[in-house]
Amino acid sequence: MIGRLNHVAIAVPDLEAAAAQYRGALGASVGAPQAEPDHGVTVVFIELPNTKIELLHPLGDDSPIAGFLEKNPAGGIHHVCYEVEDIRAAAARLSESGARVLGDGEPKIGAHGKPVLFLHPKDFNGCLIELEEV
Amino acid sequence: MIGRLNHVAIAVPDLEAAAAQYRGALGASVGAPQAEPDHGVTVVFIELPNTKIELLHPLGDDSPIAGFLEKNPAGGIHHVCYEVEDIRAAAARLSESGARVLGDGEPKIGAHGKPVLFLHPKDFNGCLIELEEV
Repeated sequence: MIGRLNHVAIAVPDLEAAAAQYRGALGASVGAPQAEPDHGVTVVFIELPNTKIELLHPLGDDSPIAGFLEKNPAGGIHHVCYEVEDIRAAAARLSESGARVLGDGEPKIGAHGKPVLFLHPKDFNGCLIELEEV
Repeated sequence: MIGRLNHVAIAVPDLEAAAAQYRGALGASVGAPQAEPDHGVTVVFIELPNTKIELLHPLGDDSPIAGFLEKNPAGGIHHVCYEVEDIRAAAARLSESGARVLGDGEPKIGAHGKPVLFLHPKDFNGCLIELEEV
């Protein structure tokens, strides 16, 4: 069912410093910061040859990653995103297996303009999983 | 400098259950458990179309991930691994930038039989980074 690893998201306390480090010391291809007010984050995409890293920083008062950075002030790996062909079928299959889909279980339009869902990290070895329909 | 994302490693408290979940509910291509006594882990590889997930479980009394699972009993994303062409050049460049290479700074032979180094998570937004020479 799951396909490509679409991205790994890393929450960072200082987006400019993190982007400069990936561009400089790590020599990666780093994009410009993109404000995503609907998702409460500013994102910097790092293009690797086979996938992406997303640097996430809170935007606005109700950011979904503010709590994560409070618990992890230095930052940390926040989630992984797997691609699926049919997100509703994926959600049904996962619910059947006993795993919890976060929120009301309905796919939302994610930061890439595609339907996404998040799965409960307690049901997946402490790993927050995003599913994105492609 | 950094190339492909070689893998994302997830430390899991129950390797058999985690492998069964990735094979079943997530429908991924999951390999057999491989004991890596030299590295203190048993590993299950999950082959995605563009990269790998490594499920890690402690093996033996001195496992490098035992402490992580003590702090995170449900498991969690442990590290990401980026490929580099020349690991000594990479280490020199990173040290020059002020980032710390873990251990004595000398590459070790990793679980894939290739030279690897780990970078200090405090210098990389709380994210443990493995570099693997390919």
